[in-house]
Amino acid sequence: MVSSLRLPTLTSLFSPSFARRSTVSLRRRFHLRPPLAAGFSAQSAASSPAGTDDRVQNKKSSRVQDRGDTDRVITPRSQDFNAWYLDIIANAELADYGPVRGTMVIRPYGYAIWEAIQDYLNVKFKETGHSNMYFPQFIPYSFIEKEASHVEGFSPELALVTVGGGKELEEKLVVRPTSETIVNHMFTQWIHSYRDLPLMINQWANVTRWEMRTKPFVRTLEFLWQEGHTAHATPEEAENEALQMIDVYTKFAYEQAAIPVIAGRKSKVETFAGADKTYTIEAMMGDRKALQAGTSHNLGQNFSRAFGTQFTDENGQRQHVWQTSWAISTRFVGGIIMTHGDDAGLMLPPRMAPIQVVIVPIWKKVDEKTGVLDAAKSVAEALKAAGLKVKLDDTDQRTPGWKFNFWEMKGVPLRIEIGPRDVSSGSVVISRRDVPGKQGKVFGISMEPSILEAYVKDRLDEIQSSLLQKAISFRDSNIVDVSSYEELKEAISLGKWARGPWSASDADELRVKEETGATIRCFPFEQPQGTRTCLMTGNPAEEVAIFAKSY
Amino acid sequence: MVSSLRLPTLTSLFSPSFARRSTVSLRRRFHLRPPLAAGFSAQSAASSPAGTDDRVQNKKSSRVQDRGDTDRVITPRSQDFNAWYLDIIANAELADYGPVRGTMVIRPYGYAIWEAIQDYLNVKFKETGHSNMYFPQFIPYSFIEKEASHVEGFSPELALVTVGGGKELEEKLVVRPTSETIVNHMFTQWIHSYRDLPLMINQWANVTRWEMRTKPFVRTLEFLWQEGHTAHATPEEAENEALQMIDVYTKFAYEQAAIPVIAGRKSKVETFAGADKTYTIEAMMGDRKALQAGTSHNLGQNFSRAFGTQFTDENGQRQHVWQTSWAISTRFVGGIIMTHGDDAGLMLPPRMAPIQVVIVPIWKKVDEKTGVLDAAKSVAEALKAAGLKVKLDDTDQRTPGWKFNFWEMKGVPLRIEIGPRDVSSGSVVISRRDVPGKQGKVFGISMEPSILEAYVKDRLDEIQSSLLQKAISFRDSNIVDVSSYEELKEAISLGKWARGPWSASDADELRVKEETGATIRCFPFEQPQGTRTCLMTGNPAEEVAIFAKSY
Repeated sequence: MVSSLRLPTLTSLFSPSFARRSTVSLRRRFHLRPPLAAGFSAQSAASSPAGTDDRVQNKKSSRVQDRGDTDRVITPRSQDFNAWYLDIIANAELADYGPVRGTMVIRPYGYAIWEAIQDYLNVKFKETGHSNMYFPQFIPYSFIEKEASHVEGFSPELALVTVGGGKELEEKLVVRPTSETIVNHMFTQWIHSYRDLPLMINQWANVTRWEMRTKPFVRTLEFLWQEGHTAHATPEEAENEALQMIDVYTKFAYEQAAIPVIAGRKSKVETFAGADKTYTIEAMMGDRKALQAGTSHNLGQNFSRAFGTQFTDENGQRQHVWQTSWAISTRFVGGIIMTHGDDAGLMLPPRMAPIQVVIVPIWKKVDEKTGVLDAAKSVAEALKAAGLKVKLDDTDQRTPGWKFNFWEMKGVPLRIEIGPRDVSSGSVVISRRDVPGKQGKVFGISMEPSILEAYVKDRLDEIQSSLLQKAISFRDSNIVDVSSYEELKEAISLGKWARGPWSASDADELRVKEETGATIRCFPFEQPQGTRTCLMTGNPAEEVAIFAKSY
Repeated sequence: MVSSLRLPTLTSLFSPSFARRSTVSLRRRFHLRPPLAAGFSAQSAASSPAGTDDRVQNKKSSRVQDRGDTDRVITPRSQDFNAWYLDIIANAELADYGPVRGTMVIRPYGYAIWEAIQDYLNVKFKETGHSNMYFPQFIPYSFIEKEASHVEGFSPELALVTVGGGKELEEKLVVRPTSETIVNHMFTQWIHSYRDLPLMINQWANVTRWEMRTKPFVRTLEFLWQEGHTAHATPEEAENEALQMIDVYTKFAYEQAAIPVIAGRKSKVETFAGADKTYTIEAMMGDRKALQAGTSHNLGQNFSRAFGTQFTDENGQRQHVWQTSWAISTRFVGGIIMTHGDDAGLMLPPRMAPIQVVIVPIWKKVDEKTGVLDAAKSVAEALKAAGLKVKLDDTDQRTPGWKFNFWEMKGVPLRIEIGPRDVSSGSVVISRRDVPGKQGKVFGISMEPSILEAYVKDRLDEIQSSLLQKAISFRDSNIVDVSSYEELKEAISLGKWARGPWSASDADELRVKEETGATIRCFPFEQPQGTRTCLMTGNPAEEVAIFAKSY
């Protein structure tokens, strides 16, 4: 993982010719919904004064009356990354704004990506010994106050229920921002002796944090996540569990989402409110900002002491349990969009894609239609039977060219085209989403199910690993090794990540943030050998840290 | 479905000899958690004045200090159905009380039953053309007020968020009690022409209703459910959809949960707040009270008119859409408990059981242990490989007898016993949960994987259909055909369901409720031929209604 200043991947992704080509091709008409921001005028008055929003830029855009027939283009990524991101979310129908500021409606196509995340992780959690369960989302306010740093971290972001069933409540209720407090309240009732440990559970749930600056998927007032909570008899077990779960996340990111996250430990300043240690996976987005994509906390005995969660050990002694918690959220969907997407729209790794293969039948004359559609249907059935996620787009309200652009924009990894000549020759044309133009197009693949199935699966595997490789190159070419604060500042000002030896104070860390906008994303697990000197103080430093601007 | 006064099933379930036997067998010591109510003392002050609770009876029970070593017995079902229900929930570790009055923590074993419900329905919803998505749970208060009967029905039960991020909100937010209003707000933005219809979605979510009288699973302040929402171009399509979904629920209840629900239409008085028609599945619990186990609503144009959800039809005319919504919740878990359970505890239909087969190895001498455990493990592996949900209880902290009782109480359909003699003979002993004593026990089943697997699967199928048959007999022997109000009152006073011709007024219906405690559960889809005379008025009646007391 030696960093370098050569930017091969970056260049190819952002080269002007590439951007131009894609924009032009997208300007072929396809009728889509208006951009996300147009749905914004109906926002509730409930929250209008409460903070800014990334949509602000579009607030003045007029409301389109007949939305069904609006031509949309996607802002080129290189031109305005944020506008590009919001355009994709709107046009690919991933999400929409809810009526309350900062809330998000996750639409079927976006939700299907979340389901792919759930399906994979849910199995892994069970394989590693965790059971799903469900805790109530209303937490007595007094619980939040029990753990000192926890209340400090979360109290500015709380939503409070003060009225229930028409009556003012005696104690206001917190809508969970996270569940450590209520989990500990319950663990205290379930844990008695060492025989009850380890206790390892997970829940899939919604959580609420009253964020001021929101962005679909990345930071919303309410979001979906899983939160794992475990209790152990020894600090070693808790530490191993925290590490095991960040490892599960890391594998998921690499193998399923094709996102080459960097796993490591958070600095003290960035550690979760109430944890001894926080482990994180940090992903580099297409604009080179970092996204904290998942965290795993070693909570030590902080919550067990605050809540009195004790067990009787094998020697009959009462001890507080050692705990962990860990979470991945719908934010990860934003990470997938911002890692792989390009000017043409979304680009989904095959293992995350709600549709892996789209089939576009092509005919001109009426007498061609039946034969082409029959062939397209039998290809679709064969691939579905092979376990693939297939969409046959057989509407005759759109031209094939429109469909090509539309499904590219939706990020479908493979497209199969079938025309009259293909039917005659018993073959199909296959195009890869990740390789633009003719280079990604192969003619004459046999329709014979076993041949086609093998070919399609191979291509999907290739795309999966190609996306990962591309993201790795991009990441590595944008991490700069620095040995002084000057070098760090320069790297950050160029939009890159800076990696350098660090043993300075919390105050120094906050100064870097103030002066550069960058924070320590993590002390990566993969460390160079030996001691070096701190880039800030010149004192010995045992670890390198990675600094970056982040979401 | 001719009802009768003979009570064969009822008798066998409640016969004193049966009750005695089970209680005695349960009194063999097994160390369990204290009953559910003991966890109650930590309830939040937030809600203490707000209503009664089924736990009230236990409120004064002292808190047990060393919970790990408490002997528990389950109150016989015939003695106190409610206490029996709460004992099962506590001892089988299905759920626990949350810190806020009326909330429930769903523990892993209870949650796994909910997951079995989800797994089945989620597939059926997708097969019938629905997509999952997610709507925010915070709804501007003004939305709730838009549909007149909706606000009337729900406003007494609302939880309100009035503070967010430390500030008083300008408009208070409702924590969703159901999502028709916010769904329509969004549908209005997505539906433009007939080409956008039908729009068919579903969400799995938590909902909040500030209920005064709560009971775990059956009625809780927060619960989990799925809510389907659809929009159609014609009233016929909406009606077909509402009927299709109640049919999906009915099949699920019969085929998976072995609950012979009666499907039908609600009376006007009992129709959902905002619907034109409500279809329901009504289940008879072990105490013969009715449980509304799922509903499907034809919403007509009530919400589309309130929210302006319109489309342009094929003739270019603007029309309001026709809608449905339908839901099943964690309440269904309560229905499974109360349909099948007996004095020994829970009894789970194999298709809903988190553990279908428990294996209990039996040894006395140390030199027997290895052989028995090896055999038990290989049997467990073979059955798991065959797709069965298997638990090997190989702890040596409990006796086999304790384990037998424990897993019976947890409702596991089949138990396999393996002792030293079984190892020698290459066979196992298999006991059915639903057939008590020696009658349900078969010796000498070969350990050979293919033979054992086939035998176990056959027995599980048998248990599944036997539970359904037993529940059908129980139901049918407790429905009385009545032709006068006097007969109705008598049937209700005997704890039965009364079925009779009904064409009387809403006022008459409310009078029946006041005088007998029974409500119209539904006008069942299965109706006798021809017109009869209303049991209340003597006027012609085209339909029979079913009256019962209910949860």
